[in-house]
Amino acid sequence: MIKKVKNIAVLTSGGDAPGMNAAIRSVVRACSYYNLNCFGVYKGYEGLINGEIEPLNARSVRNIINRGGTFLKSARSKAFRTVEGRQKAHDNLKKHNIDALIVIGGDGSFTGALKLSKEFDFPVVGIPGTIDNDINGTDYTIGYDTALNTVVEAIDKIRDTASSHNRLFLIEVMGRDAGDIALNAGIGAGAEEILIPEEDLGVERLLDSLKRSKVSGKTSSIVVVAEGDKSGKNIFELGEYIEEHLQGYEIRVSVLGHIQRGGAPSCYDRVLASKLGVGAVEALMDGKREIMVGIVHKTVTQVPLTTALEKRIHKHDQLIKVADITSV
Amino acid sequence: MIKKVKNIAVLTSGGDAPGMNAAIRSVVRACSYYNLNCFGVYKGYEGLINGEIEPLNARSVRNIINRGGTFLKSARSKAFRTVEGRQKAHDNLKKHNIDALIVIGGDGSFTGALKLSKEFDFPVVGIPGTIDNDINGTDYTIGYDTALNTVVEAIDKIRDTASSHNRLFLIEVMGRDAGDIALNAGIGAGAEEILIPEEDLGVERLLDSLKRSKVSGKTSSIVVVAEGDKSGKNIFELGEYIEEHLQGYEIRVSVLGHIQRGGAPSCYDRVLASKLGVGAVEALMDGKREIMVGIVHKTVTQVPLTTALEKRIHKHDQLIKVADITSV
Amino acid sequence: MIKKVKNIAVLTSGGDAPGMNAAIRSVVRACSYYNLNCFGVYKGYEGLINGEIEPLNARSVRNIINRGGTFLKSARSKAFRTVEGRQKAHDNLKKHNIDALIVIGGDGSFTGALKLSKEFDFPVVGIPGTIDNDINGTDYTIGYDTALNTVVEAIDKIRDTASSHNRLFLIEVMGRDAGDIALNAGIGAGAEEILIPEEDLGVERLLDSLKRSKVSGKTSSIVVVAEGDKSGKNIFELGEYIEEHLQGYEIRVSVLGHIQRGGAPSCYDRVLASKLGVGAVEALMDGKREIMVGIVHKTVTQVPLTTALEKRIHKHDQLIKVADITSV
Amino acid sequence: MIKKVKNIAVLTSGGDAPGMNAAIRSVVRACSYYNLNCFGVYKGYEGLINGEIEPLNARSVRNIINRGGTFLKSARSKAFRTVEGRQKAHDNLKKHNIDALIVIGGDGSFTGALKLSKEFDFPVVGIPGTIDNDINGTDYTIGYDTALNTVVEAIDKIRDTASSHNRLFLIEVMGRDAGDIALNAGIGAGAEEILIPEEDLGVERLLDSLKRSKVSGKTSSIVVVAEGDKSGKNIFELGEYIEEHLQGYEIRVSVLGHIQRGGAPSCYDRVLASKLGVGAVEALMDGKREIMVGIVHKTVTQVPLTTALEKRIHKHDQLIKVADITSV
Repeated sequence: MIKKVKNIAVLTSGGDAPGMNAAIRSVVRACSYYNLNCFGVYKGYEGLINGEIEPLNARSVRNIINRGGTFLKSARSKAFRTVEGRQKAHDNLKKHNIDALIVIGGDGSFTGALKLSKEFDFPVVGIPGTIDNDINGTDYTIGYDTALNTVVEAIDKIRDTASSHNRLFLIEVMGRDAGDIALNAGIGAGAEEILIPEEDLGVERLLDSLKRSKVSGKTSSIVVVAEGDKSGKNIFELGEYIEEHLQGYEIRVSVLGHIQRGGAPSCYDRVLASKLGVGAVEALMDGKREIMVGIVHKTVTQVPLTTALEKRIHKHDQLIKVADITSV
Repeated sequence: MIKKVKNIAVLTSGGDAPGMNAAIRSVVRACSYYNLNCFGVYKGYEGLINGEIEPLNARSVRNIINRGGTFLKSARSKAFRTVEGRQKAHDNLKKHNIDALIVIGGDGSFTGALKLSKEFDFPVVGIPGTIDNDINGTDYTIGYDTALNTVVEAIDKIRDTASSHNRLFLIEVMGRDAGDIALNAGIGAGAEEILIPEEDLGVERLLDSLKRSKVSGKTSSIVVVAEGDKSGKNIFELGEYIEEHLQGYEIRVSVLGHIQRGGAPSCYDRVLASKLGVGAVEALMDGKREIMVGIVHKTVTQVPLTTALEKRIHKHDQLIKVADITSV
Repeated sequence: MIKKVKNIAVLTSGGDAPGMNAAIRSVVRACSYYNLNCFGVYKGYEGLINGEIEPLNARSVRNIINRGGTFLKSARSKAFRTVEGRQKAHDNLKKHNIDALIVIGGDGSFTGALKLSKEFDFPVVGIPGTIDNDINGTDYTIGYDTALNTVVEAIDKIRDTASSHNRLFLIEVMGRDAGDIALNAGIGAGAEEILIPEEDLGVERLLDSLKRSKVSGKTSSIVVVAEGDKSGKNIFELGEYIEEHLQGYEIRVSVLGHIQRGGAPSCYDRVLASKLGVGAVEALMDGKREIMVGIVHKTVTQVPLTTALEKRIHKHDQLIKVADITSV
Repeated sequence: MIKKVKNIAVLTSGGDAPGMNAAIRSVVRACSYYNLNCFGVYKGYEGLINGEIEPLNARSVRNIINRGGTFLKSARSKAFRTVEGRQKAHDNLKKHNIDALIVIGGDGSFTGALKLSKEFDFPVVGIPGTIDNDINGTDYTIGYDTALNTVVEAIDKIRDTASSHNRLFLIEVMGRDAGDIALNAGIGAGAEEILIPEEDLGVERLLDSLKRSKVSGKTSSIVVVAEGDKSGKNIFELGEYIEEHLQGYEIRVSVLGHIQRGGAPSCYDRVLASKLGVGAVEALMDGKREIMVGIVHKTVTQVPLTTALEKRIHKHDQLIKVADITSV
């Protein structure tokens, strides 16, 4: 028989993402609603090992739904990659009589959660929180929608300058393995070309495309490049290469960087986080464990953590075609 | 045999919505990509009747993807509700050798499109563009996501004041028949209560809930009210009623109004509009007519215009529960 | 000889304004820098009477410079208008050995401060914090610049709809006695007409101007109306009147309301608040009392509180002319 | 006797700045108001040489007050640095019967304007438009206030991540010779340290300060670095140096780059641009030439172009002290 959960802990781990606070708030409030006790773990797995654990109640999470970052803080923990580290973490969970752990983060965080679950038979549930949208088993991850808006707003600003000066801008956006940000923000910002990790177009194709753009009457251009782009050149080298081989353009490079992780979450991310926080608590109450809650076609779903950790099958074809057509 | 389309016209109709420009741009660029001619009709059906029709090419729509409103302008047309009006409209379409019409708008616009299709056997395709998200057969309408962000940002600002003064704010948002904006923006903004047209909670339940909120330690409160709320009181009357029956709160009323229709579209709306614009042109090329293109689980789909005009079955239960839980 | 101040209290009073948190932070940090003790009073004068006073240190005010509202909260206090109330307030100040009080607020707050100073010979310094910019002796008040941006962004959104539909919008902005917001935001938003409390143009002049606008080719119009406008009609009556007397326009009314008080402060307001917070503490250290610190031509200045409470001489002529010219 | 101006041309030159469109609009509308003819020159001096000149009327500039960049486009012109280039430019002005030229830009643009004035006795008036605020004889340049807000909003986002991860961020902002952006945005964003070109603190002082910050309990830090900083290290080298010499911090570097030049102008910049545009036209009507219009203590003023080109005397002392105190 499944032991009923009574005390739930929650932590955020890995890179922070807008909406993490909304997810914590939702976990805390769902615990309060269902008369469970909730504990916040500070600094991710590092804090779990160091015992930085405090009770949270419904009022602890007031006025945080609109804030970027995570008030529980996050960290990458080397210690948690060792058995000793995880043992200490488990000891601390037991010390506070915690029955289950909710982990908000990306694949690195879920790998840790899975180990805790396997080694100590400890109930864990994952909530996908990362701007990269690179988790299998969910349509969207928390923070992704906000990051898209941040990128698009930044490129809107850069386009003011690009079109005032007839310039070509190369703009690097986040996405080491996943082109979701580059592709969607590229379409949204009206980019002429988009380079993503899943597809190696080669530098020559880019040059050809830019030449065609010029012929078609475009006087300025935006090229969006995911940081994981496979062209073999970093964005500055790419800029120099184009400058050498394409006449009549002034080239500028902009690396958007860390602004993409922050900011007040979009409404979508706040609602998604609210749904998944409730969903995670309810899953634990139903006796579920070693799963991730996600969103599939607007409905909260559950997949095994192992599935969440599988490689996502990219289906970018439709979007790539839309990008090609709308940048004519 | 289906006659191949060669000349496509596009218009925007009804209330404007952020992302309409992105949709027009996508239609125009898709025509260019597929070597079709594209015509823009100004001022919706009114302009169709008056012959305000101009050719558009790929460069006509540069630098508009980020702009709210619609550069083709929109209008409500009484004349188009008459047979004579529609006859003139059809005459003008013929005069320009236009083979098909793409209508970007809401249900009123689609009703007009359907009549044109039925009466003159003229190919029409609809694209759902309205902030209300009240169209059947599509997960989202263009402009809805942007409106949610606008509402949430406005309420974030009001919450600054609410929590500085320990006040109760009643905030009216758009949504005459659909509670989608109120419900999602209410959750996203951390509202304590949300009143929607689909559900009549009664004023007493609201009072009870606000009393409980106070007891639970809340010192300020946000109540989001859809304009189509069925409580029988307008928002100012509601405010007075609460003030009379609930002690210790200062009540303030705010009607967000027209700011909800404008603003730079969110990335989501720009991408959605880009997909649907391409989808509409491709549907016409495939010989489809009297349909609406929509988005269902991230994929562009087609439904008969008659289906789009049917009453949407609301599935707000899951969200209402999330709202109840997270406002604990 | 002047007694050296050692313990300073700070409170926010009246309507909240963006940048109040930045001002509190600056007061607290300046106290820390100069080795003074700082106390925060919650809920303005009400909290002073009720003894809601707590020590603050440099770390108490971390991460608040970017937040709207005031974390010390604000309130209007009836009790403080009585001698008994002020006596209690003074008793509480003495109980905590507080030597001086810094009041962040508008003219109502300064009136209270002046009474405290006169009746108990208690050192007070005022910092002008109100979005209305209606305080004598300072070029700008804290929160005003942010409110201007909020208004202009809101009208930008409404203009999307106005120009999409060829409509005339009447937009009410804050400013009961001062037209500063209406005039500056009106120019900034490209309004066709601006109605301010300091000037009664009469409804007829407005009608004439709108007629001329139409003749000159304008297809949509924005009229900005300060809430204190002296036309004798409220904004809804004004809308009806225009609708009756001006053909060919659809009229819409929008009351911007409380969003104008909130939001993250602009850079200008944060820097201004930082300067004035430091300036207030340094003034007390210099033995100054019964003064307001303000900004005049980018320099922190001091004026007697009585001067701050005098009627400001409006110098709107230059701006009114700019408004007339740029709305041609 | 001074010849009355009848035909005025306007151009934007050098780096674009938010508010340039508002300035052009104001020049055009002022010409319309005073019954003068106005001509727009495209692409700065380059377009003047190439004869890219077109008449503008009051309706040509509708709906641009809120747009970043410059619709007249800008460019840096090598040809204009030669006598032959300027001769051609002058010929084109004469060909269109243009009596006077208004140049919106920074010091490079004014140097060119001065040459045109001297060599051909041609009336020119400058309007200071640059985000750097580095022009002598005016309190503010157009675009500067907007850039400050852009920087502060970007750092607010980065701070979300910084405080979630206990990190130290080095953030590079624009300002090759002027620390105005770094200093004001640094204070506004709550930076712990600010490095500006006008002051060489040395890397050691920075290290000391960061060590003190840690001791005082700060868990994350923002250091703002102007691009013209004189520390002798670029920002990446600076980051590595700190990482080597300061334990317990993860260092991250972010170069804000071109987003700082774009975006919808703030209300302040729109009003400033509107005032200066009117002021420039009125100055020409008064027979003024070889001057720049600027803003001094809220009033439009005129200084000789030669004065505008003198080195500005920096008065950062007061602000540096405020920065030191508020970052305690």
